[in-house]
Amino acid sequence: MFKSVTLKEVAAEAGVSYQTVSKVINNKANVSPETEKRIWQVIADLNYTPNYRGRSLRRQRSNTIGYTWEPSPPEQTNPILDSFLHSMFRAAEEKGYYMLCFPFHADDARMLQVYQQLYNTGRVDGFILSRLNYDESSVPYLLENKIPFVGFGRLDDHDQSFPYMDVDGGNGIAQAMDHLVSLGHRKIAALAWPENSRVGNNRLEGYFTGLATAGLRRNPNLIMRGEGTLEVGFEATSHLLNLPEEIRPTAIVCMNDMMAIGAMQAIRSVGLQPGRDIGVTGFDDSPTARYLNPPLTSISQPIPTIGENLMKRLIDYLETGTYQEPRCELIAPKLEIRESTMGYVPAKG
Amino acid sequence: MFKSVTLKEVAAEAGVSYQTVSKVINNKANVSPETEKRIWQVIADLNYTPNYRGRSLRRQRSNTIGYTWEPSPPEQTNPILDSFLHSMFRAAEEKGYYMLCFPFHADDARMLQVYQQLYNTGRVDGFILSRLNYDESSVPYLLENKIPFVGFGRLDDHDQSFPYMDVDGGNGIAQAMDHLVSLGHRKIAALAWPENSRVGNNRLEGYFTGLATAGLRRNPNLIMRGEGTLEVGFEATSHLLNLPEEIRPTAIVCMNDMMAIGAMQAIRSVGLQPGRDIGVTGFDDSPTARYLNPPLTSISQPIPTIGENLMKRLIDYLETGTYQEPRCELIAPKLEIRESTMGYVPAKG
Repeated sequence: MFKSVTLKEVAAEAGVSYQTVSKVINNKANVSPETEKRIWQVIADLNYTPNYRGRSLRRQRSNTIGYTWEPSPPEQTNPILDSFLHSMFRAAEEKGYYMLCFPFHADDARMLQVYQQLYNTGRVDGFILSRLNYDESSVPYLLENKIPFVGFGRLDDHDQSFPYMDVDGGNGIAQAMDHLVSLGHRKIAALAWPENSRVGNNRLEGYFTGLATAGLRRNPNLIMRGEGTLEVGFEATSHLLNLPEEIRPTAIVCMNDMMAIGAMQAIRSVGLQPGRDIGVTGFDDSPTARYLNPPLTSISQPIPTIGENLMKRLIDYLETGTYQEPRCELIAPKLEIRESTMGYVPAKG
Repeated sequence: MFKSVTLKEVAAEAGVSYQTVSKVINNKANVSPETEKRIWQVIADLNYTPNYRGRSLRRQRSNTIGYTWEPSPPEQTNPILDSFLHSMFRAAEEKGYYMLCFPFHADDARMLQVYQQLYNTGRVDGFILSRLNYDESSVPYLLENKIPFVGFGRLDDHDQSFPYMDVDGGNGIAQAMDHLVSLGHRKIAALAWPENSRVGNNRLEGYFTGLATAGLRRNPNLIMRGEGTLEVGFEATSHLLNLPEEIRPTAIVCMNDMMAIGAMQAIRSVGLQPGRDIGVTGFDDSPTARYLNPPLTSISQPIPTIGENLMKRLIDYLETGTYQEPRCELIAPKLEIRESTMGYVPAKG
C-alpha cells in the first residue's frame, strides 16, 4: 500500500525544508496553517508513512482517544449519541484520558488521512469506531498500520479480526417476532434495509429466526427493502396494505423507529388504527418512540454499557499491550412493549 | 480566590517529589493514574495555581478547543447536539484545530477543576461553553483567569461580559404569538419554565411581547410554570382545560417541544383535537416534532450557523488576540408552522 517515499521527497514536493516536514509530523511546527495543510496533502498524495512503529514506542503518550461519527440527516436525531459520548467520556476520565473528536468525511481517502495524521502526530493513542459496515475501509487500514482501536459494531457476523462490542440486532427482532406471535399474529411483514447493510441484514436474520421458531413460512411478498426513512416506511406499508386479504399482514416489524413511524402514518391514512388493527414494532427505542400516538413498541440498546466497556478495553490495551477477553462481544438488546402492538384481536378460525 | 501555595507544598501533601508534581502539571509524568489523580486532588484542595499566565506565553499551542455539555435525561434527546458538534468540528478542522470533549460534572468545583487542568496542562487553548444560566460559575472563573472562551448563550439579557452568540428565544415565541393571533386566538396560555431559568424567562418575554402587540391583557391564570417535561406539560394543560369557559385558553404556547407533547396528550385525553380545538406550539423544532400526530408547530434555531461562528470567533481570537465584532450577537429563530396550530375556527362574537 505504501511506496518507500522519503521525508526529503515530501519536503521537495511541498517546497519546504526537511526540518519543517519533520516538525509538522511531530506537531512541533510553527508554520502557517496553509503550509501545514500543504505538507499533509503532499504526505497523503505521496503515500508517505513516517516510521511510526518505532516512533510510537518512543513517543510520549497523549492519553487521548479519537472518535468521529457520521452525522444524522437534519430531520432525524441520533438517539444514542449523547449517551454514547458521555459513557465514553466518563470511562476515559476515570483513567486519566480524554476524547478528541473530529469531523466525519464521507470520502474514504480523506478519512484515512485524518486517522493517519492524528495517530502519527501523537495527538491520539487510538480510536473508537462505530457504525461499521461490510466495506469499512478504516478497519483494514488501522489493522495494517497497527494503530490501536476498538469498534462498536463489526464487519460481518463472523468477524473476529479486531476487538469490538456489538448489539445482536437479530436477537432483538426475534424478541419482537415472539411477542407478535404470542399475540396471535401469523402474517407478519418486515420492513428491511438494502442488502448492502450489515446491520440491516443482522436484524433481518431475527425476522427469519422468529418465523422459523413459530413454524411460519417465509413469504417474499411480505419482505420490503429500502433506506430506513419515514418515507420508505410509509410507501412500503401502503403497498403491504393493498395486498389481497389472504396474505395482507396483521403486523409489521421495522428495522428502525423511523420506518415504524412511516408505517403507522400509512396505517392511519387508510382509516386503520396502529396497535388495534395492525401491530407495529421499531428498533432503537429512540426517545421519540414513547411519545408517538400510539406509543411505539421498540428495541433498546444498552448504549452506556457499550460506551464504557469499549473505552475501558482500549485503554487497558494501551496500558498492558493485550486486549482483555472477550475481544469480541455481542450484547442482546431489550424489547420495550408499548401500545403499537397491543389491543390486537386475532380473527377466528 | 487563590492562596500562595507553592509546588513544594503540593508535593509534600501528595507524598511525591517536586519533580513529579511538575511533570504531572506539564503532562509529562510517567506515574500511575492513581498518583496523578491524587496530585490533581491536592492541587485542587490547596487551590494551587501554576503560573500559567507566564506559561501560556511560552507554551506550545495545542490547537485544541475544549467542550462539554450536560447530558440529556435518558428519555429525552438533545435535538441540537449532533449538528452543533459537527458544525464546530468542521469549522475547527478548516483552521487546523480539533475539539477535546470531556465529561460534564454537576458539581461546580469539580467542573472548574477540569477547566483549570485542561488549560494549565496545555491540552486545550480555550473553551466553548453552552447552556449558560444566571448562576453559571464557569464564566467568572474563566474571565478571572484569562482563559479564552466563547459561549452559546449568555448570563442575562444585558450581559456583554464575554463573547457569545445566543438565540433570541423571545423573538421566537413572539412569532408564535403573532401566528396564533392571526388565526383568531384571543385566550392564549403559556407553559413557562421556573423563574430561575434564564432561557425560560427570555422565551416568556416573547409571550408578553405577543400579548402587548395584539392588545391583549396578561392573565396570571393562563401562565403556568414548571420544568420543561412532558409530565409538566400534561398536568398544566389539564389544569388549563378545567378553567371556566370564559377564560379557558384556545391556544397554548410551550417553552419547549416536550411540554407541547404533554399538552397535546392532555388535550386528546379530554376528547379534544390538538390543532382543531386547541392550538399548540413548541420550541426547539426537535426531529420528533414533525412526526407527532398532529405534527407540531415549533421554533427552530440555526444551530450549524451558531456552531461554526463560535468556533471561528474563538480561533480568530487565539490567533490575533482580539475578538471580531460583534463580540455578542443575538440570532432570531424561525417559526415552523404545522398542523398543531391549523384548523382552528374561532367562535363568533
